[in-house]
Amino acid sequence: MFGLMQDRPLLISSLIEHAATFHPRTEIVSRTPEGPVRRSNWGEVRQRAKQVANALRQLGIQPGERVATLAWNSDRHLALYFGVSGAGAVLHTVNPRLFPEQLDYIVNHAEDQVLFFDVTFAPLVAKLAPLLKTVKAYVAMTDRATMPTLDVPNLHGWQDLVESQSTDYEWPSLDERTASSLCYTSGTTGNPKGVLYSHRSTMLHTLMELAVDTFGISSEETVMLIVPMFHANAWGTPYAAAMAGTKLVLPGPHLDGASVYALMRDEHVTFSQGVPTVWLMLFQYVDANPALDPRELGLKRVGIGGSAVPRAMLERFERQFGAEVVQGWGMTETSPIGVISKLLPKHFELPAEDLVAIKLKQGRGVWGVDLKLVADDGRVMPWDGSSRGHLYVRGPWIASGYFRNEGGARLDDEGYFPTGDVATIDPDGYLQLVDRAKDVIKSGGEWISSIDLENAAMGHPGVAEAAIIGVPHPKWQERPLLLVVPRAGQEAPTREALLAYLATRVAKWWLPDDVVFVPELPHTATGKLLKTQLREQFKNHPLPSAANGGDSEPTA
Amino acid sequence: MFGLMQDRPLLISSLIEHAATFHPRTEIVSRTPEGPVRRSNWGEVRQRAKQVANALRQLGIQPGERVATLAWNSDRHLALYFGVSGAGAVLHTVNPRLFPEQLDYIVNHAEDQVLFFDVTFAPLVAKLAPLLKTVKAYVAMTDRATMPTLDVPNLHGWQDLVESQSTDYEWPSLDERTASSLCYTSGTTGNPKGVLYSHRSTMLHTLMELAVDTFGISSEETVMLIVPMFHANAWGTPYAAAMAGTKLVLPGPHLDGASVYALMRDEHVTFSQGVPTVWLMLFQYVDANPALDPRELGLKRVGIGGSAVPRAMLERFERQFGAEVVQGWGMTETSPIGVISKLLPKHFELPAEDLVAIKLKQGRGVWGVDLKLVADDGRVMPWDGSSRGHLYVRGPWIASGYFRNEGGARLDDEGYFPTGDVATIDPDGYLQLVDRAKDVIKSGGEWISSIDLENAAMGHPGVAEAAIIGVPHPKWQERPLLLVVPRAGQEAPTREALLAYLATRVAKWWLPDDVVFVPELPHTATGKLLKTQLREQFKNHPLPSAANGGDSEPTA
Repeated sequence: MFGLMQDRPLLISSLIEHAATFHPRTEIVSRTPEGPVRRSNWGEVRQRAKQVANALRQLGIQPGERVATLAWNSDRHLALYFGVSGAGAVLHTVNPRLFPEQLDYIVNHAEDQVLFFDVTFAPLVAKLAPLLKTVKAYVAMTDRATMPTLDVPNLHGWQDLVESQSTDYEWPSLDERTASSLCYTSGTTGNPKGVLYSHRSTMLHTLMELAVDTFGISSEETVMLIVPMFHANAWGTPYAAAMAGTKLVLPGPHLDGASVYALMRDEHVTFSQGVPTVWLMLFQYVDANPALDPRELGLKRVGIGGSAVPRAMLERFERQFGAEVVQGWGMTETSPIGVISKLLPKHFELPAEDLVAIKLKQGRGVWGVDLKLVADDGRVMPWDGSSRGHLYVRGPWIASGYFRNEGGARLDDEGYFPTGDVATIDPDGYLQLVDRAKDVIKSGGEWISSIDLENAAMGHPGVAEAAIIGVPHPKWQERPLLLVVPRAGQEAPTREALLAYLATRVAKWWLPDDVVFVPELPHTATGKLLKTQLREQFKNHPLPSAANGGDSEPTA
Repeated sequence: MFGLMQDRPLLISSLIEHAATFHPRTEIVSRTPEGPVRRSNWGEVRQRAKQVANALRQLGIQPGERVATLAWNSDRHLALYFGVSGAGAVLHTVNPRLFPEQLDYIVNHAEDQVLFFDVTFAPLVAKLAPLLKTVKAYVAMTDRATMPTLDVPNLHGWQDLVESQSTDYEWPSLDERTASSLCYTSGTTGNPKGVLYSHRSTMLHTLMELAVDTFGISSEETVMLIVPMFHANAWGTPYAAAMAGTKLVLPGPHLDGASVYALMRDEHVTFSQGVPTVWLMLFQYVDANPALDPRELGLKRVGIGGSAVPRAMLERFERQFGAEVVQGWGMTETSPIGVISKLLPKHFELPAEDLVAIKLKQGRGVWGVDLKLVADDGRVMPWDGSSRGHLYVRGPWIASGYFRNEGGARLDDEGYFPTGDVATIDPDGYLQLVDRAKDVIKSGGEWISSIDLENAAMGHPGVAEAAIIGVPHPKWQERPLLLVVPRAGQEAPTREALLAYLATRVAKWWLPDDVVFVPELPHTATGKLLKTQLREQFKNHPLPSAANGGDSEPTA
């Protein structure tokens, strides 16, 4: 027997309708790629979204066809979020930081029909266009005055194509399982793979993003979205902000510390989301301007994901900014909310040191995300805070597979998705990442976490960035090698000083067997360390401990 | 084209699984009908819920069949919430305050198969049982030692029937549209009508209840649930508390001021939900014990719904308790969240007086609830804060009709449900109830709000309760009559003093034409004024203004 409740599909178009109805004059502030700040609001974003839908109709886009963006965070990108998906097409947010050979691969793989792009990317688009087999129209998201001259077929400008359209448009009623957006994972190996979100998965994830125990997006806050809109739908916050009627501040490409700081201050930002790399740039700016007091910002909370939050970052936000850090773990395949680091009431009485230890864990599972740890041999591991296992996840906003079946069937026989991460979970359900399964260092049958070692090394004041990789070892199978980028303007620490520093922070058998100083480290398009390249580069690095066929002590 | 996300139905069983997995030792504190406080936790509630499911199997209950409760708020009622719905049966929460002739009507109408009841209701059950045509088993929710002696067929006790069962039970995977619970609206006229919730509607409503902009149920809080679990699923909070892993405090039948105060203090309650009547009892207790400082409670927020919040109540919670009032409007048919009174950032700078005016509105629409105001002639009315119209609502947790099609098709041609309320909506989307459509006083072609007049009268210190009804008038069609219950222990105000008090607070043409002092006022089973009875009783009341065929001034 079915209930007698209204049969309303969960559709992304309902978000912009809600925002424009209840929060029409709540601002959307964009720092444009062209430079100036542009002020819009939810009422206008609805108008633009409807104009986008009419423009797609004019271009002949059919339901389910893909519409690509190469764009920064802005009100226009926001209008595409609602206009493209709302009209029943699929918004494919292309990550412009991908390697060029990956860009044409994914646009062709996705069979994108239209490409919207910011002027920043005009040179890239000129280079890509001859390789793109399906794109039949290009749209520069800029005004008439700043239109680039570009030799691509069927080039339009935002004002002529979009803003000239009627704002009358009735959103179609769709099956809520209809595909809404597409985002490729950058991956450190193999071709990128597309995660194809649905209206339903997006809406359920959006509802959860409003919860106090996750990011708590609400109408009371001003949210600066630093995480890019080409990055797992900017963690879903464009949707959540519409559902809550939140003021959004969108920095465009201006992610340097000075720009971020000024925009935060001018717009009274209370909450901001981004990956650790961006926050490091903000810290560097504050360091270079000692007269600034970051407490003037009034920043209350910072959402950090993408990679583990270093202890120093957490402490600095708390002490210098007066801002709470909300850490999360997720991935493109999890929409991305997986776990969120919120404290429980029983923690409130703990000494500061113990609190930090909990906050540095990636977080606790939220409703909608089932977690499972599986050993190499298939055993399900207990949640005791120390047993390690491959992390599997299940839930209504988690991928079941990849676009066009890349990589084949993914779910295990209980419907769980393998994340490729190794983790522990404690009895309260707090997950702590040990490592990516392929980055963990297998030393004498035990696992050493490269993440833990890197975080420890990053705590040294002379270290700007650190990477740990496993190097083949004749006796122990692998041993850790520490690669260090020294901090600019400071005397570089010595190998011995670094190892002595680490010796007080990690188990003796974890200590790296050697230290190499490098000017920089390679990263993936999403800012993660590109360890495949490092492992290849250093695979023959002579470890002192391997000198006598490996019979030296492993900790040099 | 469909998205490639996991196909997981939204099921109530997932809530108790989440709570027991991530918050197993978070407490559920129940003051039992038998008197003592019983301490349980989410882990145990899952065990009990699974035992309930096994008990239903033993009793031969089939999917979709109705299982009734006549019970106060307790951990056992909570276990039934998850166990009955989780197993695929329908939880029918019967309101024991209904008039006896309504009780057997709804149990027979719902065709309930089992009746779970608290010992408090043993005499009622004894009287009802011979009239109940479908109930084949009765279960007293009490321990062996306190089992009532009762002559009903197939009587079981909680310990023998439920707690003796295995805790092994695998929740069935159901279509998310499956009916989950059933609640009859008390109605002031006609037979009660059943609202049949689904797993899907319940889960979407639960997600919204975690939002900062609604009730913000979270793991950080301790929630005392005073609103009864037989009352629109206790506003959905039992589900929301499981989704968030919240500590719940359940007062059973002990709703007197002293009991509520003591339980709040002892359990460190931070948020509590209830109708205005209960809060008046709490205030009376505080008044009678001037040595108490309610700030000692640490109560942060109070959720109030069911009827409009009087200004005095709002101010008293803020000043004397230091607690924020979160007002909401909804009904059994809306699960019940319709609108919630949260402020917008632009309000924060307003003077206190203007703030109160906004807080006294019922609130702003949340995502998932579309609002529409319709005039008598079918025109859609603007949101200007003054145009009045019949309120229509639409959304995924709003009823489409009633159980067994009572009252026939309900939705208009846009899919909206008529609420029977008259309201205004301002340009920010804040809804203000004018009146129930049938209670509004139609005076000379204009509408006078009985609610506004009652609230104004309630502000007089000599008034304990006030009711306004329309009385037939030869010239004006209807004119308002004020019925007043004087406050105990104070000198009753005079008719003239009351009218003079009101004259400074409402428009002159709204002033009641007469005042009648009464010892008490009749209420419905859910605590609302029973105005049908009052209108009948006072329909021939001689209004002074009607003396000369109505040619006297309407405001006497």
